[in-house]
Amino acid sequence: MSETERIMRPSAFPMIEPEEATRLIFENVPGPDPAAVEAVPLAEGDGRILAEDISATEDMPPFNTTAVDGYALLEADLEQSRRILGDQTAGRLSGLRVVPGTAVRIMTGAPMPDGADSVIMVEYTGEAGDTLNVQMPPKAGDNIRPKGQDLQAGQLVLKAGTLVGPAEVGLIATVNKPTFLAVRRPRIAVVSTGDEIVEPGEQAHPGQIYDSNRFSLISAVRRAYAEPVSLGIAPDTKEDLRELIHTALANYDGLITSGGVSVGKLDLVKELLEEIGTIHFGRVNLKPGKPLTFVTVEQGGKRKPVFGLPGFPVSSLVSFELFVRPAILKMGGRTNLQRQVVQVKLEHRISHSPDRNEFVRAIVTEHFDQVTGSYRYTARTTGAQNSSRLLSMLGANALLRLAPGPALIEEGQTVPALLLDRPEV
Amino acid sequence: MSETERIMRPSAFPMIEPEEATRLIFENVPGPDPAAVEAVPLAEGDGRILAEDISATEDMPPFNTTAVDGYALLEADLEQSRRILGDQTAGRLSGLRVVPGTAVRIMTGAPMPDGADSVIMVEYTGEAGDTLNVQMPPKAGDNIRPKGQDLQAGQLVLKAGTLVGPAEVGLIATVNKPTFLAVRRPRIAVVSTGDEIVEPGEQAHPGQIYDSNRFSLISAVRRAYAEPVSLGIAPDTKEDLRELIHTALANYDGLITSGGVSVGKLDLVKELLEEIGTIHFGRVNLKPGKPLTFVTVEQGGKRKPVFGLPGFPVSSLVSFELFVRPAILKMGGRTNLQRQVVQVKLEHRISHSPDRNEFVRAIVTEHFDQVTGSYRYTARTTGAQNSSRLLSMLGANALLRLAPGPALIEEGQTVPALLLDRPEV
Repeated sequence: MSETERIMRPSAFPMIEPEEATRLIFENVPGPDPAAVEAVPLAEGDGRILAEDISATEDMPPFNTTAVDGYALLEADLEQSRRILGDQTAGRLSGLRVVPGTAVRIMTGAPMPDGADSVIMVEYTGEAGDTLNVQMPPKAGDNIRPKGQDLQAGQLVLKAGTLVGPAEVGLIATVNKPTFLAVRRPRIAVVSTGDEIVEPGEQAHPGQIYDSNRFSLISAVRRAYAEPVSLGIAPDTKEDLRELIHTALANYDGLITSGGVSVGKLDLVKELLEEIGTIHFGRVNLKPGKPLTFVTVEQGGKRKPVFGLPGFPVSSLVSFELFVRPAILKMGGRTNLQRQVVQVKLEHRISHSPDRNEFVRAIVTEHFDQVTGSYRYTARTTGAQNSSRLLSMLGANALLRLAPGPALIEEGQTVPALLLDRPEV
Repeated sequence: MSETERIMRPSAFPMIEPEEATRLIFENVPGPDPAAVEAVPLAEGDGRILAEDISATEDMPPFNTTAVDGYALLEADLEQSRRILGDQTAGRLSGLRVVPGTAVRIMTGAPMPDGADSVIMVEYTGEAGDTLNVQMPPKAGDNIRPKGQDLQAGQLVLKAGTLVGPAEVGLIATVNKPTFLAVRRPRIAVVSTGDEIVEPGEQAHPGQIYDSNRFSLISAVRRAYAEPVSLGIAPDTKEDLRELIHTALANYDGLITSGGVSVGKLDLVKELLEEIGTIHFGRVNLKPGKPLTFVTVEQGGKRKPVFGLPGFPVSSLVSFELFVRPAILKMGGRTNLQRQVVQVKLEHRISHSPDRNEFVRAIVTEHFDQVTGSYRYTARTTGAQNSSRLLSMLGANALLRLAPGPALIEEGQTVPALLLDRPEV
């Protein structure tokens, strides 16, 4: 039987529902390897996942300090004017001691001088020579930030697993750590298959087109906070392809293939993967994305996922979005794995493949109802929805899910929408 | 008059409203320099802003092709069985010609063989020897993707100014461009000031604390799609500080200072900036963030912004979020400059500084009403809201805006919320 004849049979894989595909992926894709952590400097910390608990080693502030520029003094003092003893600037101890009848100039962040129990803001004072005139009576504790107000020594500040952003990186700095342990980003290899595809920048011959999926997927992997590794266009021979898959799984945490365009070659990929791993599914009741294939391979004591995405550009990106993105987020130790789903009213009728779960690229708009103080969403599609038409992804901020059912969904009907970006207003 | 005495006066800057601050910033912060573009390889293209129009140089698909695996044949053929002439695989021209009574095996993405006007899916056929049995009559055009269906030669595909993501990078690849021109990311220098702050990892002496703002701001600059450059902690002398500001403005597109903690030193910064630039404002009716200062300096024919942020960690981050982030987005050529604002109902009463625009860190939750198909938002604060308490930023997905007004805002009242992240569900 020739290779071509062999592939001239319909897929032998049972068709499963998207929910079952999601379940199988989450069940079989590992979380982050506890040993795969790295020290990250604070300035590079944005967007990383903490791999250690962060605790305060001392109180914050570490001393009683002032929240304002003004004068440190005593409530008990009933005089309106006081003698200024000198300055307490930030960053050092002045050694000055406030006693009744005296005050000390003090700058925001400076330690409180001994004796003082209050700070009066410069706005409520007047200074003449070394005499301070106080225009309102100070109260003990006024404008003082007591030692340990914001953090106490030993307090757990951030838990392992936290996503690090501006506030978190600031807290790690505050507790005097110039670096922190982060989950290593998953490294995901991306390879395109297809006899007809050539590298952009080269010259396509008749019958050939330029590879676009690999670049789309690299961009999408980056957006899932992982490190994409481009493996180029898959080689032609079975031996070279086996070598490529081996190298990819030995060096990286997962592999994404796209293509099914050259079915013979995709078949080769599946055949090779069947030799070395487990095919969890090879067909999903989806449009676009039906031939989506999910495989895991045990390699060096680790379970590594391989996602075989369809070759049409939209099929490839939509199935990435629905199934691969959540998996990569899980591998990276993230917890917010799924996009937000909102209910939207259709702005126009949509025709629908009645036997499939269709994911239609759409623009969702938010509407505010002043009277009820509530929000509603409406959606319109991005035009012709063929799987090859990447233009249908442009400007789409959502994927509408049309479940198997009637072939026409009428204007005004409500359907769920997976938000890819914020709604238009 | 000593330096300390000089700063012991309240701010001389008039207090302006936040809307006026936003207006002055947008009026004075430049958009991207049209000359500052760079060629970006496709694999690095995610998140960049296109600096050129992208057009299709040829039709896509560039030839009539099949959308499925199957057999290329003729509608006019009324026979149920046909002789198979051979294979048309993807990536090359087979030279085969379909005539009545014949068919050609064809793989998805392969060019249509001459003569054929239809493709029948493998699912509806049977093959025996070199004979094909057709189980349903083919129609002309079935499963054919005609030349130019998705893109036409000369068609404008992406306009300059577009944000590049997975679909866009795929389209650029499709039209055979291995790189594209992107707006250069703004390079923003960040420096901390304050006599009391020391570098994390060093040993703080009594009266000192660790610098956190610089790291928070570097993280926030990165999230605004710009390149942060850390200039460390500001030097002590006026001469060194002048040198630092000069170098920063000569080499980078903007400068962010944080601190006002050591007022003497901040005063130095302002004094130096007043010498070389224009102070547009130095005080905003905000809480936190009142001392926010905005300056522009003309340097080498370009207008460069300097943002003087307050020293308290929360003040620094909140004023960055409200005023600096939109400015940096504008500098980078982005169009979506402001966060989404939604109306939220308070889950509890909040006390409020009646004379100030307060921005309260909060957690916004979304609620779906099944009956009306609409959404409502509620909000609760993240606890004690002192400007020094970075913990109040943790988990906050919104800033509630409390406009000047009553000192208590009751449970159930509606206020606007700036969404920093997606609402909880």
